[in-house]
Amino acid sequence: MTNRERTRILILGGGFGGVHTARYLERLLERELSAGTVEIGLVSRENYMVFQPMLPEVISGSIGLVDTITPIRRLCPQTNLYTRTIDCIDLERRRVTTAAGFGSPPHALPYDHLVIALGNVTSFAGQPGLAEHALPFKYLGDALAIRNRVIHTLEEADIERDPEARRALLTFVVAGGGFSGVEAVAELNDFVRAAARSFRNLMREEIRVVLLHAGPLILPELPPSLGRFAEMLLARRGVEIKLNRRLEGATADAALLDGGERITTRTLVSTVPSMPNPLVAMLGCEKERGRIVVDQHLALADHPGVWAVGDCAWSIDARSGEPAPPTAQHATRQARCVAENVAATLRGKERRAFSFRALGKMGSLGHRSAVAEVFGVRLSGFLAWWLWRTVYLMKLPGLDRKIRVAMDWTLDLVLPPDIVQLKTDKPVGLRREHFEPGEAVFHEGDRGDWLYVVLDGEVDVLQTVPGRGEQSLRRLGRGDCFGEIALVSDRPRTATVRTLTPVNVLAVDREAFQSLFSSFPPLRGFFEQLIEARR
Amino acid sequence: MTNRERTRILILGGGFGGVHTARYLERLLERELSAGTVEIGLVSRENYMVFQPMLPEVISGSIGLVDTITPIRRLCPQTNLYTRTIDCIDLERRRVTTAAGFGSPPHALPYDHLVIALGNVTSFAGQPGLAEHALPFKYLGDALAIRNRVIHTLEEADIERDPEARRALLTFVVAGGGFSGVEAVAELNDFVRAAARSFRNLMREEIRVVLLHAGPLILPELPPSLGRFAEMLLARRGVEIKLNRRLEGATADAALLDGGERITTRTLVSTVPSMPNPLVAMLGCEKERGRIVVDQHLALADHPGVWAVGDCAWSIDARSGEPAPPTAQHATRQARCVAENVAATLRGKERRAFSFRALGKMGSLGHRSAVAEVFGVRLSGFLAWWLWRTVYLMKLPGLDRKIRVAMDWTLDLVLPPDIVQLKTDKPVGLRREHFEPGEAVFHEGDRGDWLYVVLDGEVDVLQTVPGRGEQSLRRLGRGDCFGEIALVSDRPRTATVRTLTPVNVLAVDREAFQSLFSSFPPLRGFFEQLIEARR
Repeated sequence: MTNRERTRILILGGGFGGVHTARYLERLLERELSAGTVEIGLVSRENYMVFQPMLPEVISGSIGLVDTITPIRRLCPQTNLYTRTIDCIDLERRRVTTAAGFGSPPHALPYDHLVIALGNVTSFAGQPGLAEHALPFKYLGDALAIRNRVIHTLEEADIERDPEARRALLTFVVAGGGFSGVEAVAELNDFVRAAARSFRNLMREEIRVVLLHAGPLILPELPPSLGRFAEMLLARRGVEIKLNRRLEGATADAALLDGGERITTRTLVSTVPSMPNPLVAMLGCEKERGRIVVDQHLALADHPGVWAVGDCAWSIDARSGEPAPPTAQHATRQARCVAENVAATLRGKERRAFSFRALGKMGSLGHRSAVAEVFGVRLSGFLAWWLWRTVYLMKLPGLDRKIRVAMDWTLDLVLPPDIVQLKTDKPVGLRREHFEPGEAVFHEGDRGDWLYVVLDGEVDVLQTVPGRGEQSLRRLGRGDCFGEIALVSDRPRTATVRTLTPVNVLAVDREAFQSLFSSFPPLRGFFEQLIEARR
Repeated sequence: MTNRERTRILILGGGFGGVHTARYLERLLERELSAGTVEIGLVSRENYMVFQPMLPEVISGSIGLVDTITPIRRLCPQTNLYTRTIDCIDLERRRVTTAAGFGSPPHALPYDHLVIALGNVTSFAGQPGLAEHALPFKYLGDALAIRNRVIHTLEEADIERDPEARRALLTFVVAGGGFSGVEAVAELNDFVRAAARSFRNLMREEIRVVLLHAGPLILPELPPSLGRFAEMLLARRGVEIKLNRRLEGATADAALLDGGERITTRTLVSTVPSMPNPLVAMLGCEKERGRIVVDQHLALADHPGVWAVGDCAWSIDARSGEPAPPTAQHATRQARCVAENVAATLRGKERRAFSFRALGKMGSLGHRSAVAEVFGVRLSGFLAWWLWRTVYLMKLPGLDRKIRVAMDWTLDLVLPPDIVQLKTDKPVGLRREHFEPGEAVFHEGDRGDWLYVVLDGEVDVLQTVPGRGEQSLRRLGRGDCFGEIALVSDRPRTATVRTLTPVNVLAVDREAFQSLFSSFPPLRGFFEQLIEARR
């Protein structure tokens, strides 16, 4: 049998929807797979699936870093896994192109059936400074970054004498009072307060943890009584809850709230608004609020053999008539339905309509507390927490992960929290920064390691003249650069630069500057002239 | 009592030497510390100490990522920890300056006693291509990088059909047959062969693991019989050992050996030659082979109150008259001696001379095997392995770590190896690459995501002319750039670029190019002209 006689099923996305589709298909098509008449492929950016409900515990370290994630190959061993990013979905020519890998060219993957399970992505677009200075919380890397930031600020605060800088370092702000934000703030609060005990010069009272929520009550997904319970519990543990307040922007050391309030902080976590995946946005098919419209069988009406499940699909429940909410429970049930319908199509059988009513909702509050609504029953406190752990441990895919997480939880009861700061990021050569009007980018006399290019806005360059105070030397705008003297001469900053408007800059560090600019004649010439002219 | 009346002891370095000095000092000066007449400070780049002997097991994942490292604050709770990089050691003014932190300015730390325990650093200088393409193996991040590279190559090989590319992906080369290289190759070999079982399209026979060693027998630190045992055992497990061969260079897909041999590989690990720490190199004091010469009390002759221990110190053993070798055992014993001598100096008592004979040497070979020489007795196989685990578990600092590692080892006996690829690195915008003469940087028709600037050497730009084959369009040298068309127009490469000499380039990716160049008028103008001229 040649390859062309095989039916090729291709799944896009390595989250709950995609991986469970592959798992159900492997079960339903066992005969066809072993006969070689069907092949299943799955394209995922990572080679693992993240078990999202346990992500907040990565912040506090009560679950080991890699124990919340499961290798996809282990979950669906009969599926060809392509660990690649997707370049393009071509519904007309019925093929998907992946980006080039490490030492391998791009792949073109033709399909007979395509299951789109690409979820959504996060985006800080439209809120000034958030992309540059807020920490998102959605992926595994985000949880690790938040944990490292918390430890880093404690390290710095421990040796910082300036009270203002100390306050910024010891203030932690989480924006968003839904499930994700509440679980994150609960774990962050537990962790920072426990970890601070290992630092000689920190006092408990200095730590401030703030939760911002735009509505009148946190956890709007649950009945009000559970939201009130969560508020009370978090407040008792030291979390300051600000209701009806919206995060409007950020700088390197502040969260900017509506109404002009400013909270000085070095750690701003924001549960991020979701956006449709750009690959989905580019698809030429019917959409509703950015999600792919599917019929009750989860198929695309105009594209036979193309299906969509999970957060990227707009599916109307066959029984309730309501659109399915973007939850892991629904994605998993849709995966099962789509797998059955693909199998039915292959065998010329009847498809079934998708319908599912959520079993319940749960949110962990850390420290052996949770809130839950299960089959209409409301639970809070220890019982809800016990239920939370039991249900999620059961749902965590893979026996080895179950054992590891159970072990982590056991050790966590007896061992102190881990305060190792794992710096895995390579030092970056380029970064963007945002400033509000009137802020200093740097001060005269500072040690300088960065060159700045103005992307938007205007800055004032000021120098102290003996007897006359600070004098403006020049104003700079879009496309201008400043800070170059400290980089080429190793001298401290010769001027203060202050913003006149909201300003976005691109900062280039010494190493990137040297390797890029000094080896590149037109740039070298430009900077030599610039420095000469400004002297 | 004011700060000035306190005796300030400052330790530089967070490895075995530095951390154990702080630990012994805390014990010896308990009275003074609680009376506040003495303070101890320690400057370390990381807030944890790495337990080096267990690092190879991080490659195979049999020990959890963070379980080989211990937070320094837990090990010496009475010491002020400065998690900073050091800018400058000023022996004349008796103070150390640290770099600026996250939101905090640089610190100047004056001292009365200074203990230098800065170890050494690794350097690939002088071997073309190694800095760009070889993976070093010394720090925690290195072990993690090797692990991720191995998983990444397996992922790619599983979907790669081209036999040549497949061979490069499935060949793993480790250079250096000392303890560190042998332990690394043993763990890498075990891991890659076990992990490959989870990949559908990989066959055991395709995997090739090579150990290069410059001498006639591996493990030259041990008696020849143990080296021969290790060779036999590794060979039986599938490691190909090449003796009397030296690594001379590397490109992105090959290891270059002396005599012109070339091994196609995407994974080259090199146990790196050590160099003196640049901070030590800058110090104006007597040195021998880059190490600080100390007297038998571990003090610097010309600088009262300044001491040095560990790999950065050149100390002559009081009994044997031999220089102390750079091992963890010696660093730990020197830490004890220097702590006693600092305490004796403070109390006006007699100092003691340093003398220590190593207890033994051990090397793990993975898979329940090891070689050891302890008190002159030679052990190999399971017994040596049992001894290895027992001794190192005892020596691992911190009870919580002991429990975690014991647990890791237990789970490792029953659970399959983890094949999760943790991509913690942010995609880099700039990187250096090295090419040997006659290599293609890219081919006409490739998809292009990088712009290249020539740092050294010469390249030929070639275009296929119908009927006439490849024609040279132009030659480019130092300071020239190429590859810009694919970046600005999203078209495939319009030419092939081939190296004429050994070439070093700086590669700039699309994102860095766009944010840097397009927002920067002089560069934008330069590229617009360049592209126009080359059309």
